[in-house]
Amino acid sequence: MSQQRDRVEMAIAEIRGPLLAMDDDAVNRLTDEVLAARRIVLFGMGRELLQLKAFGMRLVHHGFDAHIAGDVTALPVTSGDLVILSIGPGDLDMHRALAGLARKSGARLLVLTAQPQAVIPQMADAVVVIPAQTMADDRGNDALLPMGTVYEIALLIYLDLVAVSLRERTGQTLEEIRARHSNLE
Amino acid sequence: MSQQRDRVEMAIAEIRGPLLAMDDDAVNRLTDEVLAARRIVLFGMGRELLQLKAFGMRLVHHGFDAHIAGDVTALPVTSGDLVILSIGPGDLDMHRALAGLARKSGARLLVLTAQPQAVIPQMADAVVVIPAQTMADDRGNDALLPMGTVYEIALLIYLDLVAVSLRERTGQTLEEIRARHSNLE
Amino acid sequence: MSQQRDRVEMAIAEIRGPLLAMDDDAVNRLTDEVLAARRIVLFGMGRELLQLKAFGMRLVHHGFDAHIAGDVTALPVTSGDLVILSIGPGDLDMHRALAGLARKSGARLLVLTAQPQAVIPQMADAVVVIPAQTMADDRGNDALLPMGTVYEIALLIYLDLVAVSLRERTGQTLEEIRARHSNLE
Amino acid sequence: MSQQRDRVEMAIAEIRGPLLAMDDDAVNRLTDEVLAARRIVLFGMGRELLQLKAFGMRLVHHGFDAHIAGDVTALPVTSGDLVILSIGPGDLDMHRALAGLARKSGARLLVLTAQPQAVIPQMADAVVVIPAQTMADDRGNDALLPMGTVYEIALLIYLDLVAVSLRERTGQTLEEIRARHSNLE
Repeated sequence: MSQQRDRVEMAIAEIRGPLLAMDDDAVNRLTDEVLAARRIVLFGMGRELLQLKAFGMRLVHHGFDAHIAGDVTALPVTSGDLVILSIGPGDLDMHRALAGLARKSGARLLVLTAQPQAVIPQMADAVVVIPAQTMADDRGNDALLPMGTVYEIALLIYLDLVAVSLRERTGQTLEEIRARHSNLE
Repeated sequence: MSQQRDRVEMAIAEIRGPLLAMDDDAVNRLTDEVLAARRIVLFGMGRELLQLKAFGMRLVHHGFDAHIAGDVTALPVTSGDLVILSIGPGDLDMHRALAGLARKSGARLLVLTAQPQAVIPQMADAVVVIPAQTMADDRGNDALLPMGTVYEIALLIYLDLVAVSLRERTGQTLEEIRARHSNLE
Repeated sequence: MSQQRDRVEMAIAEIRGPLLAMDDDAVNRLTDEVLAARRIVLFGMGRELLQLKAFGMRLVHHGFDAHIAGDVTALPVTSGDLVILSIGPGDLDMHRALAGLARKSGARLLVLTAQPQAVIPQMADAVVVIPAQTMADDRGNDALLPMGTVYEIALLIYLDLVAVSLRERTGQTLEEIRARHSNLE
Repeated sequence: MSQQRDRVEMAIAEIRGPLLAMDDDAVNRLTDEVLAARRIVLFGMGRELLQLKAFGMRLVHHGFDAHIAGDVTALPVTSGDLVILSIGPGDLDMHRALAGLARKSGARLLVLTAQPQAVIPQMADAVVVIPAQTMADDRGNDALLPMGTVYEIALLIYLDLVAVSLRERTGQTLEEIRARHSNLE
């Protein structure tokens, strides 16, 4: 086997582990929250934000009123709305400020994290744990993928499974989803 | 008078000129297009894009279904929708590709420019001319503000006058506008 | 005079006032800070962020190592670096968190604001006041431009005057500046 | 096995397949291009762009001069530079315009795609094929992950393996990489 294929297998194994270790309800929990929300606003930073944006695009493709916090077109949230925040390491100042604002707004707050005992998950109405390495605990091991890489990739795959679940629960065809894809590319 | 105040006056004069030289219908033209559209998508690049985003934020504050082309939450356009494109210098490859896509989509295309004889304005359903210097003609003069700076600032002020006009035409109060401002800051 | 030209004059007057009322050192203060910095990171939200980005683009055109906080390519800051934060209304939670992080980093913090007595300007190493209306005091008057519009436009013009000053102080030609403009448009 | 774990296994299998089917040189090809480049600019749209941004962040963490096309801080490219473009379906108008600009600039153009026979890969100096489903061929099968999802996730994992390779080839420690992570979060 080539070194490249060997590394693909190592990476896949590092990503598969945390996904299989997630709570059996994890996909349903976020699916239910999205279906119950009037409006959904997503917040994160760095590479986690990129994966939330990938999910935000799918939410829009499925007809949900979804926004990325900080985008110029993002609307405010209030009671009946949902804020989804990803903070792998569990606590960073900007995320804590945002979590506080989400609480004050009256919206529900769902936190995605690898560190459920940290401050921000404790502020949430609902928590989804992705038990993967992040920058909170990335030293002193021999993992192939550094820093929060595994958390970020597992986050993307998990959110795409939620998207599959949302399609089933809303009974939409693939054609309906495709029809909401941007045509200015 | 201090040098700083002197320069403020020079900058103000450079910006005021093109704004006063605009077609007397310019604010109404874009206002009418926005009011007639079902969905509005904005496209530009560089500093022009930033001013379109500032306008996109105001469109959302006024309750319009507005999107920035390329944002993950941007929806597709079709007949009944409006694409607003700013291209001060009149022609650049990425803008031309976008203008072609807008035409193909069936949406109306409104182009903001300083060069109405250029290729892209000629593709538009409606054109608004801001007769200011851009990178198409910024050499060999002694203007204080370089490159497309005057076009960009005049664009922002013009779009904010359109926003004032939209508030009047939709009969909304300032409180209604403020209520759509993001509360996650 | 047409109604449109009348409104252009009103808008220009509303913008010119605060610019002329600024401290005579304001352009030099930011110019000096930029010239003394190793790296510059800009932070703001909403329409203020858009104007900081317009300035960030000019900083890059002038050869400075400038970044927008939150961009994927933004590098960290430390002693010798400069954080520029705009907060017209003087205090918002996300901005306060960012200001705290800037302080902790050892970088200098320069705050642009209309409310110098507020919390965040008090945390700064240097403050530039743009004495314009923002969302902190936009009610009960008959200004044409609503909310923080005047602050935002004045901010853009002020920052473009700083860019002019940076070109003079670094002795660069317009051609050198233009050569750093993106060629993928 | 729970339905959720069953689906994790299905998703993992759908992603693993194309990664193992990639050319044995794929990781080295991009690694070599990055190491030989003076400056690197990344271009894509939608969810592919998000994965390129994730890679762009890692390039910056590793000390490379990397930019996202369209960002306000992006510098121009010329001979000696590298443009990396991802276009899973092989041809879209905006990407074709960008590829043409990249060619004109004198920079090398590396294209990531699932459709190497399409127009844009044929314009490239180097091509990396990720043989996964995209919106060019997503109908009439019973895959769990819809549209370009598998391409996008495989793209992220592939690019993270390139990042691992870049760390080895530049002989940097994890601490050196971490030290370039933003500290304004």
